[in-house]
Formats: sequence, structure tokens, C-alpha cells
Amino acid sequence: MTTRPPWAPQGRRSRVAYLGPPGTYTQEAAARYAPDAEFVPFPTAGHVCAAVESGEVDEAVVPIENSLYGSIVDILDFLITAKRAKIKSEILLPVKHCLMAAPGTRVEDVRAVLSHPQALGQCRGYLAKHLPHAEQVAALSNAAAAAEVKAGTRSGAAAIGPLRAAGIYGLNVLAEGIQDANNNITRFVVLAPEDHPRTGRDRTSLCYDVRDEPGALYKTLGPIARRGINLSKIESRPSGIRLGRYIFLADIDGHRSDPEIAAALEEIRQMTQMMKVLGSYPRAELPEAG
Amino acid sequence: MTTRPPWAPQGRRSRVAYLGPPGTYTQEAAARYAPDAEFVPFPTAGHVCAAVESGEVDEAVVPIENSLYGSIVDILDFLITAKRAKIKSEILLPVKHCLMAAPGTRVEDVRAVLSHPQALGQCRGYLAKHLPHAEQVAALSNAAAAAEVKAGTRSGAAAIGPLRAAGIYGLNVLAEGIQDANNNITRFVVLAPEDHPRTGRDRTSLCYDVRDEPGALYKTLGPIARRGINLSKIESRPSGIRLGRYIFLADIDGHRSDPEIAAALEEIRQMTQMMKVLGSYPRAELPEAG
Repeated sequence: MTTRPPWAPQGRRSRVAYLGPPGTYTQEAAARYAPDAEFVPFPTAGHVCAAVESGEVDEAVVPIENSLYGSIVDILDFLITAKRAKIKSEILLPVKHCLMAAPGTRVEDVRAVLSHPQALGQCRGYLAKHLPHAEQVAALSNAAAAAEVKAGTRSGAAAIGPLRAAGIYGLNVLAEGIQDANNNITRFVVLAPEDHPRTGRDRTSLCYDVRDEPGALYKTLGPIARRGINLSKIESRPSGIRLGRYIFLADIDGHRSDPEIAAALEEIRQMTQMMKVLGSYPRAELPEAG
Repeated sequence: MTTRPPWAPQGRRSRVAYLGPPGTYTQEAAARYAPDAEFVPFPTAGHVCAAVESGEVDEAVVPIENSLYGSIVDILDFLITAKRAKIKSEILLPVKHCLMAAPGTRVEDVRAVLSHPQALGQCRGYLAKHLPHAEQVAALSNAAAAAEVKAGTRSGAAAIGPLRAAGIYGLNVLAEGIQDANNNITRFVVLAPEDHPRTGRDRTSLCYDVRDEPGALYKTLGPIARRGINLSKIESRPSGIRLGRYIFLADIDGHRSDPEIAAALEEIRQMTQMMKVLGSYPRAELPEAG
């Protein structure tokens, strides 16, 4: 028996878009969020986001920042300009790379390791120690690497990617958790036409633009600081639209319907030309290790 | 005759480290900064930075942020923990991708396009329009793609990368400026044991940690805002060292030796547990297009 999530439309499974192909960390995050949904892969972040805007899917899961690599800026830029899509939820997922190969291949048989260059770079220590003589081969994605190993065109090939990719492509896991850094965590957000009702443990993401002049940012943080609202993240980005202006992205603790939060947001709105609430949603906790 | 840059040690050419292999955008930035230096490629950002710390090189050029992709976080993390290395200069370089192939290959002959997955993604529009049937093949770096095209193991192959790579690998440029976005600019910094003397048009980068509590960031921005100092960038990062603390990275206009800047920095130092000036250096202008 599958449990229908409360947000699923009546009469059919919820359709959840994600950045494909199957077997990526984004699909992993989507599966944790909505195990029973129908997952629809899209080739680019732009396509994923457009599918939410058009109503082609009910929700979408996209990566938004990584603890080692920072923000995923094209997603932020989409959110800033989006007409409908709101952040409805967040998901924290530790990046845990696995070495996988066709059944029968042992670590000592591996002659080539395939993956996205970023994943190869994240496993530099493991590869230097355990597979110093294996050739490192770039792939367009971790999932594409697993598919190529599965295809079997290269003997002694192994791929690096998430556990899910091994399951999808029928590969054996030779080693787990082979990444150098253990604080490599990706934050994903769920986009939907509506954000999340208040839970009491919420976070609100907002963005606004300010003039490139002394004290401009400081002034806009006043309404937040004076009310004792916690600011958990702030980031400035040059505005792509108007030169000499900056866009600030901020995460604050609380829900936009909380009276104190609502008052702070209104005050910021009055001091900026553009202010947008990207969504209020429950704060995520890190999942258990393992 | 080569001109010796004023900062070159007597008796030998300055040694400048960069993230290799040759033919990357980082080498392009290094060449614009110090045309006559001896360039030393290193395989990772960590190795580049360590070479400055140990004195093995005089300076190093590393990418620090991209207008589309955000900060390059491992470089920031290095700067936060570095013992000697300071930011001495900044370089802004528009990313301008070229399509390149062996002499004799025309665009209509191209059957496979090789590059780093990020560069392939940045040229999606051009590839869809002009080379819809060409296979896209991942490479470990843009330079590795050019080297593979040069090696000639694959017929009808072209690479995407900087103009410099075409020169280094003896390839013909089939098309220039094929990236989708024209606001794709990378900011590089020059690291050295000392930062730059005051020029009158300077920028200062600093970082400090604050408690994860309401108003903490706001308070630390006061000394900057009250003095009318312009804040051109701010970014928060979770501290890898202590949970529940944040590190803020800020860029402000002015030199650390300017009395107003020095006073603001001292005031921030007194309200934080860790505050570090990453360096003062001349503000870069965007180079002329072309």
C-alpha cells in the first residue's frame, strides 16, 4: 500500500519534476521528499522551473546550494524572476559518492573511473590511494557515467555516483562514501504554485534589490534585526537587469504569516523598489547518517 | 624585449601559479595580469594555494566567483584559513567560448563536440541551432578537450574553450563567443604574501564569524554603514569549524590603510571572535570587449 501525500491532487499521483537523467542526487532528494510521486526528468534547470510555471507538473525538486560549492545561481535567478513558483519545502542531502561497476568487477580490476569532473574531483583522495593507475574519464553527469559502465563498452570501467544510480543501472557497489569531505551537503528546494502553510518551525526566503550606495543593505536589515528575527543566510548578487544595483537574497526564521515577520517584510518592501517573498516552508533537519 | 613587472624579484622572472592544465581561463587571466611571468600550472585549487603559502611561487591566480555560478567556495575557504596568502589584485574576465577544430575541419563536418560539462551547458543554444546532430562528449577540462581534438583520435571532433587553448593546441577557431549568456564574467584574484599598496581606487576583502543569533550580522555592518563606506558584496557561509556559527565574507570600497576603513575594521574586530583582512587591492574594471 502506498500512502498518498496530503498535497497530491485527487484522482492521480502527483507529478514531480527534477533535473535528470534518472540516478542523480536530485532524483534521490525528490524520492525522499515524495516517495510515491511520478518523477519527470527534465534536461536543464530552466526546463524544470518552466514546467512548474506552466502547470505541466505539480512540483519540482531542484538543488539550490551546496556546502562546498555555494549557491546554484541559475536556480536563484529563476526564483527571482518566476511568476508563480514558490519554495514549498527544503531538503538537505549529504553527498555520498559510491564506486560502482558491473557485477564481477572487483576494485583491483578497475582500469577507468567515469564520472562528472566535479565528482571525480570530490573523490581525489580515494582515487589516489586505491586506484592510482586507473584512468579518470569525464562524463556529462554521474548518471551518464553509470549508464556507460552498464553498457559495457569499456572493460574494467567503474562509475562514481549516488547509490540510487547503482540500483537503476544494475551495478554493484564496490565502495561507499568515497568523497574526500564529509561536510558536503546539498540543499534542495521544492517548487510549487503555493508555498507551505505555517508549521511553527518555518523559514522564509526573500529577495530584494537595493541601490549600490553606502548603507543601503544595512538599512534593509534593520526591520529584521530590530524584531529579533534570526537571519540564517544572506547573499548579494549583481542584478542582471540593472547595472549598479544589487539583489540580496536572505533566509530568515519564521513564516510570512507570523505577525512579526509580516511587519518586517512590509517595512522592507517600502524601502526597496523590488521585494519578493520566494516562499515560507518548514525548516529541514539533516537526515540521519547512513 | 620583455618588460619586467615592477613586483618581480630581482634576477629572475616572477613565478605565477595557476589552476592548470595550460589553456584554461585561469591561465588567460594570469597572462593578462603578468604577461612576462613564468606560469606554473597546478592540478587543484589546494595545490595552487599551498604553493603561495610555501613560497614555491611568487604569486598565484585563482578564480573566486562567476557572475552566473556564484562563488568558488574552496578558494574562499582557503583564504579564510590561509596563514600568509593575501589578495593582491583582482582580474575580471568575460567568459568567451570558442568552437575549435583541427585545420581543415569545417563547422558542417563536426560530429562530436568535446568540453567540460559546464562549458557544454553554457553553449546549449549555439549547439542546438548549429550542431543539433553532433554528439556532446564530456572532458575533464576545456583544455583536455582541446588536447584530445588535437590528438585526432576522433574524426569530426571539435572542442569548446578559450581562444588561448586554440593557440596552444594548434586548432582553428570555427566560431567565437558561442556562449548563451553575455553576462558570464569570472572574477579572479591574485594571491601573494603581501597585498597591494593604496592606489586611491581600492577594494578590501574581509571575513569574520558571528554567532547564529538575531541581529548579529546587522551589528557588524554598523561600523561600515555609519562611516558611509560602500559594501559591494556580502556572503554568508556556514562555518565548517564550529556548528551554529556563520562566516561572513564582505568586500568594501577603500584600502585598509585609509583611516576610516582602518577604524571600521578595528570596530568589527572587537565585536567578533575571528576577523581577518583578506587583502586590499586596486578595483578592477571590465576589459574592453573583443
